[in-house]
Amino acid sequence: MSVDRARLERHIAELSAIGGSGTGVTRLGLSPDEQRARDLVGSWLRGRGAVVRRDSAANIYGRLGGAGPAILVGSHLDSVPEGGRFDGALGVLCAVEAVEALLDDGLRFKRPVEVVGWCDEEGARFGIGLFGSCAAFGRLPDNAAARADQSGVAIAEALRAIGESGDPTTARRAFGDVAAYLELHIEQGPRLATAGIPLGVVSDIVGILHARVTVHGRQDHAGATIMTARADALAAAAEMVLAVEAAAAGLPDAVGTVGEISVRPGAKNVVPGECIFSLDLRARSEDTVEALARDVRAAIRRIGDARGTKSTIDVLSRVPAVPLDGSLRDLFLRSAQSVGVAAPELFSGAGHDAENAQLAGVPTGMLFVRSTGGSHNPNELATLDDAVLGATALAHALRELAG
Amino acid sequence: MSVDRARLERHIAELSAIGGSGTGVTRLGLSPDEQRARDLVGSWLRGRGAVVRRDSAANIYGRLGGAGPAILVGSHLDSVPEGGRFDGALGVLCAVEAVEALLDDGLRFKRPVEVVGWCDEEGARFGIGLFGSCAAFGRLPDNAAARADQSGVAIAEALRAIGESGDPTTARRAFGDVAAYLELHIEQGPRLATAGIPLGVVSDIVGILHARVTVHGRQDHAGATIMTARADALAAAAEMVLAVEAAAAGLPDAVGTVGEISVRPGAKNVVPGECIFSLDLRARSEDTVEALARDVRAAIRRIGDARGTKSTIDVLSRVPAVPLDGSLRDLFLRSAQSVGVAAPELFSGAGHDAENAQLAGVPTGMLFVRSTGGSHNPNELATLDDAVLGATALAHALRELAG
Repeated sequence: MSVDRARLERHIAELSAIGGSGTGVTRLGLSPDEQRARDLVGSWLRGRGAVVRRDSAANIYGRLGGAGPAILVGSHLDSVPEGGRFDGALGVLCAVEAVEALLDDGLRFKRPVEVVGWCDEEGARFGIGLFGSCAAFGRLPDNAAARADQSGVAIAEALRAIGESGDPTTARRAFGDVAAYLELHIEQGPRLATAGIPLGVVSDIVGILHARVTVHGRQDHAGATIMTARADALAAAAEMVLAVEAAAAGLPDAVGTVGEISVRPGAKNVVPGECIFSLDLRARSEDTVEALARDVRAAIRRIGDARGTKSTIDVLSRVPAVPLDGSLRDLFLRSAQSVGVAAPELFSGAGHDAENAQLAGVPTGMLFVRSTGGSHNPNELATLDDAVLGATALAHALRELAG
Repeated sequence: MSVDRARLERHIAELSAIGGSGTGVTRLGLSPDEQRARDLVGSWLRGRGAVVRRDSAANIYGRLGGAGPAILVGSHLDSVPEGGRFDGALGVLCAVEAVEALLDDGLRFKRPVEVVGWCDEEGARFGIGLFGSCAAFGRLPDNAAARADQSGVAIAEALRAIGESGDPTTARRAFGDVAAYLELHIEQGPRLATAGIPLGVVSDIVGILHARVTVHGRQDHAGATIMTARADALAAAAEMVLAVEAAAAGLPDAVGTVGEISVRPGAKNVVPGECIFSLDLRARSEDTVEALARDVRAAIRRIGDARGTKSTIDVLSRVPAVPLDGSLRDLFLRSAQSVGVAAPELFSGAGHDAENAQLAGVPTGMLFVRSTGGSHNPNELATLDDAVLGATALAHALRELAG
């Protein structure tokens, strides 16, 4: 398989430059930068004869081959704020490269292949993760288009600003339209790097609960209000943050994170009257996600009772734990073998667009590429060697399915 | 003493209307609204024969009587954003009323009396609290005029925009120029309201340490990073917030508040890499302020060591605890007695312009008026009855000192 190392390197650099500075990338979902990324990927695919289209959720597809159910391959094009070059992007880049390598080899696809760049996987601005693939596979929350960012701009407006209709629900793919979905993604955790292995095959994806907690206390003068007379919303939230941490640490294969926090009024000499924070609870099994959520709810109630604060918990999304397709897992194990890698099976602690496909009944497989420096930060790094291995294995799998 | 209840009520309404809506007032220091408030107060004083002037820090003075060291009486004219009608304003209104009542009674001042309206006590926009009285008593921080607001406008520019030179340091009063300073202010805490007593006499003003703490952790993916591999900046900060609370609760007459907090990058699916929060530490005695600061520093270090985070603490300001003048305290106790109130002695947990006068060697006394609904919010309320009692007691004290 003649993956073109120099072309892949050049494409990585070109895509990283959009929203990038140094090794960091800030390319938020539904932003003009994400739109530029789509345009770039679309130009590459069009250059190879693909029919390129965007749907109403701002996903981009580049299709090669004739009619009938397609093999879908890709990942997402957005990043978190101050994220890195590889999370999501590498999956699109390797999908493009795999297709180009197969075309370079003179392959004519017997089944259609579509390269996809999903829109707004991270949900950083509007709070709906996996936005584009949710739309494509009919898993958007109700009234998703009305969801607004912190400055009051709704998703519908953001879509219209980049030329879409404003109704992402029409992006839903027809049943039977997609024969399989393949996604390559950096691991985002240290297991492959620790084991010294460049590729891994995903067995299943964690279940996730995202929520917003609002703590109502009493705003008071920081100097004139004695400690025992306070109902400090931030102090209560601080206890809750630590309770989330403790609850997750006490359960198997579970994590819990508070990544956003804000207080009102937010002045150094005023006891906070309100505190809002995010909850991200995950576990490998559904039972554990539920147990973690129960523990956290109980802690929030207990802390509020003790401190005289009131809390509301708004569940923003709940994604079940998803086992991926067994035969595609085996295909990816063989594809990794074909590039000389004995890939381990791993579960994914991160949610992925792949889960929407699998949940919609589309057989789905995921390939992890080793990454150092964590993820969601400018230090995330998949080496060019590993990217070439990943693209080659992906091309191998594509040829098996569509060649 | 013939305090004019209707006139005081009218003046409260007229002043509250500047920057006001409902019971709320937003009249920021160095704003056009604060300037209008000065013009209104100046017109009242001019109408009673006072010589009215503004200094280069935009403080307003209205002077009655001849040459020599003056008895200064007043408070500040600005409010916090979304503040109330009484914090600061009531002290100026009652000073005007006390002087008018004495003039109505036919009193001729043997010593000069100056009513003062201090500029920008709250420091809401530029971050320098007690701005006007700092300028008058030589306690401005270095290069205060260059301090800019969030949109980059410097204090010097704001001063020039309202017709001043731009150099507030020239507002400094000559040594010996002020014989005494009297300030009436709402209590801002619940002690008088709880005790059911309309007036209190301030014994001393707390010392304050303001600082900014920055916690450096490691930004990581919220799903792929197991709990034991994290250096979560917010979780560390949460422990620190609780340590501030515990340290203050464990010391006499001390309070500690974290009123501002922010995290980076601030996304729900990213373990926070950095957290910045404010520290407001106060105590009645200097020794206790220092003990509180020591406890908090030690806790921040200990928590960082245990969690693998690094913290820096930037001290933004440090105001010493200030005992007020003993003979003026006794005078105010007698003045309260003259209106039938057995006023308790209280320490002030809030900073006040009065501390700048006392720290500059000017004998200073403060009278508290009961307020319900806290302070720094639209619910703060001193009743007209209590305001009349306060103005009458203040007039009594003024007659003793200058009559």
